[in-house]
Amino acid sequence: MLDAEEISSPQNPRIKNLVKLRNRRPRDKQGVFIAEGYRAICRALEKDVIPRDLYFSPEWFLGENEEALLKEAQARGANLFELSKIAFEKVAYRDRPEGILGVIEQWSHSLQDLPLSKPPFLLIAESIEKPGNLGTILRSADAAGVDAVVCCDPVTDLFNPNVVRSSTGVLFSMPTVMTTSQEVIEWLRQNGIASVATTPHTDTFHTDVDMTGPVAIIMGSEQFGLSEIWLDACDQKARIPMAGQADSLNVAMAALVTLFEAVRQRNAAR
Amino acid sequence: MLDAEEISSPQNPRIKNLVKLRNRRPRDKQGVFIAEGYRAICRALEKDVIPRDLYFSPEWFLGENEEALLKEAQARGANLFELSKIAFEKVAYRDRPEGILGVIEQWSHSLQDLPLSKPPFLLIAESIEKPGNLGTILRSADAAGVDAVVCCDPVTDLFNPNVVRSSTGVLFSMPTVMTTSQEVIEWLRQNGIASVATTPHTDTFHTDVDMTGPVAIIMGSEQFGLSEIWLDACDQKARIPMAGQADSLNVAMAALVTLFEAVRQRNAAR
Repeated sequence: MLDAEEISSPQNPRIKNLVKLRNRRPRDKQGVFIAEGYRAICRALEKDVIPRDLYFSPEWFLGENEEALLKEAQARGANLFELSKIAFEKVAYRDRPEGILGVIEQWSHSLQDLPLSKPPFLLIAESIEKPGNLGTILRSADAAGVDAVVCCDPVTDLFNPNVVRSSTGVLFSMPTVMTTSQEVIEWLRQNGIASVATTPHTDTFHTDVDMTGPVAIIMGSEQFGLSEIWLDACDQKARIPMAGQADSLNVAMAALVTLFEAVRQRNAAR
Repeated sequence: MLDAEEISSPQNPRIKNLVKLRNRRPRDKQGVFIAEGYRAICRALEKDVIPRDLYFSPEWFLGENEEALLKEAQARGANLFELSKIAFEKVAYRDRPEGILGVIEQWSHSLQDLPLSKPPFLLIAESIEKPGNLGTILRSADAAGVDAVVCCDPVTDLFNPNVVRSSTGVLFSMPTVMTTSQEVIEWLRQNGIASVATTPHTDTFHTDVDMTGPVAIIMGSEQFGLSEIWLDACDQKARIPMAGQADSLNVAMAALVTLFEAVRQRNAAR
């Protein structure tokens, strides 16, 4: 048995607030975000991110390890709330609820805080719209071993529930910054980090751009690509050779290809 | 005005059959598949794939070009059926119906039919489970310019509605084959095509494997990776260096990275 506050009514103010937290404004105002599902909460704890509040409903559990996970989270400081089946159904945003949803405090880094490797290796994403793409970019950046992911002029914020989900836990460990393009451009210059803009508007292939030094790969939005600000400010432009349909690679796929070309070059240069 | 047969009842046998076609068995039995949405049908026509039947419902249209598209399809041989709003709602499988759904005849290639470039360049996918991954693999293969995508021992078939959708039209133009692993292994040997198995069970990085000659990149399923059959039969094994979480790259992302390393090598070798 778990020692938890019980909530049975879908009209409970906490339940209503959880539904609100799907939207950015209340999320930012309260300085928290939500992460749903057994695996997401496991990943958070693995990375020492302790949910402030954990809402659960045993009738929705799919496995047998949920109780142990909740006990661990509670021992590490999480408040537990046991929900009725219908109350949980209201707060769940996934199609197949797993009976676990956490409220986690947001964090923020500034560019000045970021731990940089030698030479620095960064992924900069401008105004990405689709949460799934932002989540996939985080995964790709993690696999490639970048120092940080910087979101410029974000349209979709990093704490959007579908970014949390599609990042498969990478959000909990990857250093991230949300800021303006102007600030990032200034900071890259001050730190001597070369910016490589990925864009179809160049004849240079990504494989012909030297990415062995201090480098930031810059990706633009799905609909508009990189803004003039970045196309003007960047040190180099690069495009991926495309054999098929013009749009076969979306922004997340293009980021992945460019990141792993940088990894190849950097490993070869060592 | 379009000259079309009208169907108002959701109980109409054609409506019932369209719902059935979401499942593989009736799809294969009837030798057809469904493609939904304005863009999907545009892509099909662009690639000279003419839907046999086109079902539409103007009350769901989002834009103003639907009628022109339907007229073009009809002129090229498609049968038109105008559905009531509720009848279309029943057949739509997308969250936001666009009022257009086509029934298209399946096609099949055999390995012997495939047009091969010199040197051949193939992507082989074994038992992929998630339609979204298969669709993304098709897009990646298109961008990389492979000759064909071969699905071995398919779990999800290429004509699954979510493969059709997530391939963003690539399915209509990419040569594809569905067959057994055993047949593919035999055929690769006969044609002198080297098989490169992507697997974590090797110390060799994908960047250290020569993919400039006749080559097939082999990807395994999400849950189990490549089967013993392929791990035994392959000429080389390759893995992608991973900096972060073990599972940051899924099978579709790993395919993309490996394909574009092959593209880099092949372009450099020219």
